[in-house]
Amino acid sequence: MMSFGIGRSFRMTVFGESHGRCVGAVVEGCPAGIELGAGDIQRELDRRRPGRAAASTRAERDIVVVESGVTDGRTNGGPIMAIIRNEDTDSSWYAKNRGVPRPSHADYTAHVKYGGFSDWRGGGFFSGRITAGMVMGGAVAKKLLSRSGVRAVAHLVQAGAVKAGDVPDDGLDAMAAESPIWCADRRASEMMLKAIEEVRADGDSIGGIVECRIFGLPVGIGDPIFDSVESVLSHAVFSIPAVKGVEFGGGFPMSAMRGSEANDEFAIDGGRVVTRTNNSGGILGGITNGMPVVLRVAFKPTPSIGKEQRSVDLSRMEETTIRVGGRHDPCVAVRAVPVVEAVVSVGVADMLMSAHKIESI
Amino acid sequence: MMSFGIGRSFRMTVFGESHGRCVGAVVEGCPAGIELGAGDIQRELDRRRPGRAAASTRAERDIVVVESGVTDGRTNGGPIMAIIRNEDTDSSWYAKNRGVPRPSHADYTAHVKYGGFSDWRGGGFFSGRITAGMVMGGAVAKKLLSRSGVRAVAHLVQAGAVKAGDVPDDGLDAMAAESPIWCADRRASEMMLKAIEEVRADGDSIGGIVECRIFGLPVGIGDPIFDSVESVLSHAVFSIPAVKGVEFGGGFPMSAMRGSEANDEFAIDGGRVVTRTNNSGGILGGITNGMPVVLRVAFKPTPSIGKEQRSVDLSRMEETTIRVGGRHDPCVAVRAVPVVEAVVSVGVADMLMSAHKIESI
Amino acid sequence: MMSFGIGRSFRMTVFGESHGRCVGAVVEGCPAGIELGAGDIQRELDRRRPGRAAASTRAERDIVVVESGVTDGRTNGGPIMAIIRNEDTDSSWYAKNRGVPRPSHADYTAHVKYGGFSDWRGGGFFSGRITAGMVMGGAVAKKLLSRSGVRAVAHLVQAGAVKAGDVPDDGLDAMAAESPIWCADRRASEMMLKAIEEVRADGDSIGGIVECRIFGLPVGIGDPIFDSVESVLSHAVFSIPAVKGVEFGGGFPMSAMRGSEANDEFAIDGGRVVTRTNNSGGILGGITNGMPVVLRVAFKPTPSIGKEQRSVDLSRMEETTIRVGGRHDPCVAVRAVPVVEAVVSVGVADMLMSAHKIESI
Amino acid sequence: MMSFGIGRSFRMTVFGESHGRCVGAVVEGCPAGIELGAGDIQRELDRRRPGRAAASTRAERDIVVVESGVTDGRTNGGPIMAIIRNEDTDSSWYAKNRGVPRPSHADYTAHVKYGGFSDWRGGGFFSGRITAGMVMGGAVAKKLLSRSGVRAVAHLVQAGAVKAGDVPDDGLDAMAAESPIWCADRRASEMMLKAIEEVRADGDSIGGIVECRIFGLPVGIGDPIFDSVESVLSHAVFSIPAVKGVEFGGGFPMSAMRGSEANDEFAIDGGRVVTRTNNSGGILGGITNGMPVVLRVAFKPTPSIGKEQRSVDLSRMEETTIRVGGRHDPCVAVRAVPVVEAVVSVGVADMLMSAHKIESI
Repeated sequence: MMSFGIGRSFRMTVFGESHGRCVGAVVEGCPAGIELGAGDIQRELDRRRPGRAAASTRAERDIVVVESGVTDGRTNGGPIMAIIRNEDTDSSWYAKNRGVPRPSHADYTAHVKYGGFSDWRGGGFFSGRITAGMVMGGAVAKKLLSRSGVRAVAHLVQAGAVKAGDVPDDGLDAMAAESPIWCADRRASEMMLKAIEEVRADGDSIGGIVECRIFGLPVGIGDPIFDSVESVLSHAVFSIPAVKGVEFGGGFPMSAMRGSEANDEFAIDGGRVVTRTNNSGGILGGITNGMPVVLRVAFKPTPSIGKEQRSVDLSRMEETTIRVGGRHDPCVAVRAVPVVEAVVSVGVADMLMSAHKIESI
Repeated sequence: MMSFGIGRSFRMTVFGESHGRCVGAVVEGCPAGIELGAGDIQRELDRRRPGRAAASTRAERDIVVVESGVTDGRTNGGPIMAIIRNEDTDSSWYAKNRGVPRPSHADYTAHVKYGGFSDWRGGGFFSGRITAGMVMGGAVAKKLLSRSGVRAVAHLVQAGAVKAGDVPDDGLDAMAAESPIWCADRRASEMMLKAIEEVRADGDSIGGIVECRIFGLPVGIGDPIFDSVESVLSHAVFSIPAVKGVEFGGGFPMSAMRGSEANDEFAIDGGRVVTRTNNSGGILGGITNGMPVVLRVAFKPTPSIGKEQRSVDLSRMEETTIRVGGRHDPCVAVRAVPVVEAVVSVGVADMLMSAHKIESI
Repeated sequence: MMSFGIGRSFRMTVFGESHGRCVGAVVEGCPAGIELGAGDIQRELDRRRPGRAAASTRAERDIVVVESGVTDGRTNGGPIMAIIRNEDTDSSWYAKNRGVPRPSHADYTAHVKYGGFSDWRGGGFFSGRITAGMVMGGAVAKKLLSRSGVRAVAHLVQAGAVKAGDVPDDGLDAMAAESPIWCADRRASEMMLKAIEEVRADGDSIGGIVECRIFGLPVGIGDPIFDSVESVLSHAVFSIPAVKGVEFGGGFPMSAMRGSEANDEFAIDGGRVVTRTNNSGGILGGITNGMPVVLRVAFKPTPSIGKEQRSVDLSRMEETTIRVGGRHDPCVAVRAVPVVEAVVSVGVADMLMSAHKIESI
Repeated sequence: MMSFGIGRSFRMTVFGESHGRCVGAVVEGCPAGIELGAGDIQRELDRRRPGRAAASTRAERDIVVVESGVTDGRTNGGPIMAIIRNEDTDSSWYAKNRGVPRPSHADYTAHVKYGGFSDWRGGGFFSGRITAGMVMGGAVAKKLLSRSGVRAVAHLVQAGAVKAGDVPDDGLDAMAAESPIWCADRRASEMMLKAIEEVRADGDSIGGIVECRIFGLPVGIGDPIFDSVESVLSHAVFSIPAVKGVEFGGGFPMSAMRGSEANDEFAIDGGRVVTRTNNSGGILGGITNGMPVVLRVAFKPTPSIGKEQRSVDLSRMEETTIRVGGRHDPCVAVRAVPVVEAVVSVGVADMLMSAHKIESI
């Protein structure tokens, strides 16, 4: 079976390969009448482009074209197709090393799953480049959410061993935007950058953690039992390459807590029911409770490193070694920040549409 | 929108409420010809029943009846419906406290989502009792998986602050079964039991972590981009009440690692491609790589505690306090062990069926 | 893959077999707060029961039990499970004739598809008895639709060679209810009854055509391109056993018409846009236009006839003959009338929910 | 909700508008390793292009570009995106007549459904031009089916009042290809052409009926209860603009038959179970029985006619008249022949993949 699409009421389908002709997305289910231009999508694509600190040196301009779904500057109710062209591809390293899977990459599993016919150039559709498609779809979702006052804001809270301190909800996006690596804690941002430069110099890489907070969600979003907010958002987020964990609110550390510490007591604030703490991460019984939804996403270190590693030659079934070429981000979590925002926005738009909280017109 | 079902090729739909007439499941997509009796399902239900250590004192016999889908002792290709009756229900506490939501329960969000018409008795379908339906569906999945030599084994690796030591794959299920709380590390099991009894005596509760390992999966299962193994399994697992985090392989701690440490180098072992380590948790690019799939599931502390807590009276919109009655497990992670096994088995059966790795006959 | 469920936003899943323990349905997606009792479902089941004219003599009381999804007389937002028991089953004829497929029945294809493990007793889930499950789901849909003033009314317009004359929209349901075979044209009803008795006496059967009109639909329902009103309703209706054709509005005869005759010109009536004719059957571009939706459903003659027919013995792969036993309706289209109404109601409820025209609460 | 995609295991999503930049399709679920070039898709597109007899005079070259999903001439397991550009568009007539819906077109319903934001130029995505996307997806399906010896062949059997005589299965495609209107009965083809020219001269249009036969299907395809072969194929076919009816095998005329005439008796032929007649149209219980699947699709007359018609001015809510401009086929059923083949092929590919009858690699 296939699954290049996600969403029931608001659906994003991505296509394209790292070294193919293009990468793009089709978005279905966006209500008609939403103002949407290429600029709205370009802005988000620019945020994930290499060129920022700590990124690969692949030079793509990534100019988006909106091919369908918009008439007179507004969505027309039909599928929105957006596309960028691949320009700066060089498949020579991959041609030379075909048949020797890079450790902790999808090369081996793709080879088996697709019977030897997977696209071997730059990881094909397993490449991080496919996340450009996710960002295009996310840009449409963001435009839609903004009409309802809903906003997903992602920021980097850990890179390698460096952890950011607590940052408040207010001004979070502005603070994150000031950092070249989307870390809203300025001091931590500098230390992270240093750590990243260190591993880069070393031909190595590090992992990181991205947090995403969703503001403005009404109470009652999410579809128990099997399409809870956590199920829908984790499903979306685990589609991003290199994600190894997802937690909500108090997350894994809550396992060590007592109920009397962890429970979020209710209160009334300005005529509205709120909770006094938010260990629940804005979700109770799989349904939003009106507090900010908070999730954290763990990224493994970029698997592409400059050091020699042991692998196998699949055609001869012999052990061998490989030194990964190409241009890679030393900390994939950095460029993943806008991607997390994008897929979370798509998931939230889907849940809001499913809950009839966004009018289909 | 609704979502009481999960799965594309192998689908489980659950129904019932905590204090209603029954709880049950419908399973679609199970191939015909599989030997299946009520005993296969009863065995799994017995594993999640209260009565084991550290559980609530609600006394349900939970005798399952298979109402459809089986002819002459074998599945007939049609939907398998199985049901248990609710017998030991007492809604009096809930009647008295209707309108005052229990902290960190679904009462408030369900009230809003269902416009005041949600089942207020014992949490309705948000109750942990709905997991009996998941276990019924999981029992069918397990029967199916066993034919292909695939097995999901869950065990408790943390309860409150007590962590289990490393346990080998071999004999894991037997070791877990010896512990009344499914902890395969005997020493840790005893300490956990003590910790659980302590919080129970205290009218409090603790969280815990359940690990699940899946053995016997072929290479090539999982459907990128958006139905990766991680997406499908996290989606399923986050449907279990009280889950706050899911991680695969190295998980969250991988964020602090370097690529050179974290990467799983390939080797050849007995003519088969293997990895020398398994930080990937058996998954590369969202696809199984032939190593055991490993995931860990974080449970929050049982929100029902005996202590007085602050809440609100929804009808008067006033702050008030509540002391939760009823009978509850002090560590919900314990009884969740067979539930994790069940939903993981359903997810795995679905992926195997989708990948054509189980014949539809 | 399996498909015992239908619907995206309002979903019905059926289970059970002709000679198994029960037949039932699970309905998901019904908004909370709808008044619903067993009586609402019983009323519809009684309409499809044998015992009316022209039906089989199998005597089932078909007393429905609502097992979940209703609290204090109203839907609670959860899955509604309803069930009837099989009581009057006699599998002896099927035991004797196992392995010799009845012509134009599903025996042969089910045997192959399910590898010899299909339920051979009374056709298993291919039996017309499964339509009782559809009627249960339809009863819930009808209750929901009635709140929005939407009503599907089916009636018999042809039985064998006898065709009913035109009948007006007004009072259609009352006129159909007066006829023991749901034919709103009294004269035709009598002739049809006679024709049915004739073929029954002859050990033979005849086909028929059921028309369904849907009143009260707002403009704008239906999801182009691939979930048009016609696609959704034909999908649902072709699930009823013995259906061989579905047409909307002018249907097949429109193929012979000119555009100038067939087109429905627009007019304004009481401030509302209407069409002067309704050859479109209430649908333009796959979307409702505010006129009544009209479809006709062709049923083949009941394949179970008393006459000797040629068949094959599957175990010996030899030609043989068979004389079908059991109790059967000579004109399956008659009892299909409430079934058409039911599945159409489910389809309409699904489209209305998807279009946000029924509040999910 | 949206639905620009169709299929569960083999999925086609279409995008584009009549007067927008392009029309295209994304195909998911095609196994890797299938030889596929732009030529395979171009061949099918050329079959539906205007320029053949009886077509509109809009001059599009419709040169397809395959943008993703193919590596080294073979499918790579990823989404296949194919696109054609719109070149010969002239929206002036539509600009002048905006707000006055064309009778029996989707203008009015699209206007209401999309809140006035639907693409008013040439019908937007309701235009017949969207069927080019269906043909692109169908071309991929056909390539896939051909590997399994499965073939869908459509031909015109009625245009206006002219009906084709019986044509044998053998050589059906060749005979149809000889006719400029895909009518395999040469004499009828000439009469149909004359009838079409007559209505064209008259500024009028006629309807028609397309038959499709599917050869080579194994026994056991189709998913009861709710995804029967009839349900899946009718769902697909009713997505084609202007379709008003679908029937299988004996179809509507079977309603007037007796069971003893209509039943298909079984026989053994060359060690294989066959039926002596094929009134069932190759389907029993919603499952293929190994005989050719036969369906007929009724098309209404092209709604665009040159004659003056009554309509309404939606902005003023006044009655008015309209004379439809633009370039249109006088008999839309003619160009629909390859479109029926395409969507049927997509449906069949989906069912075969779901039934595991095509290896996913």
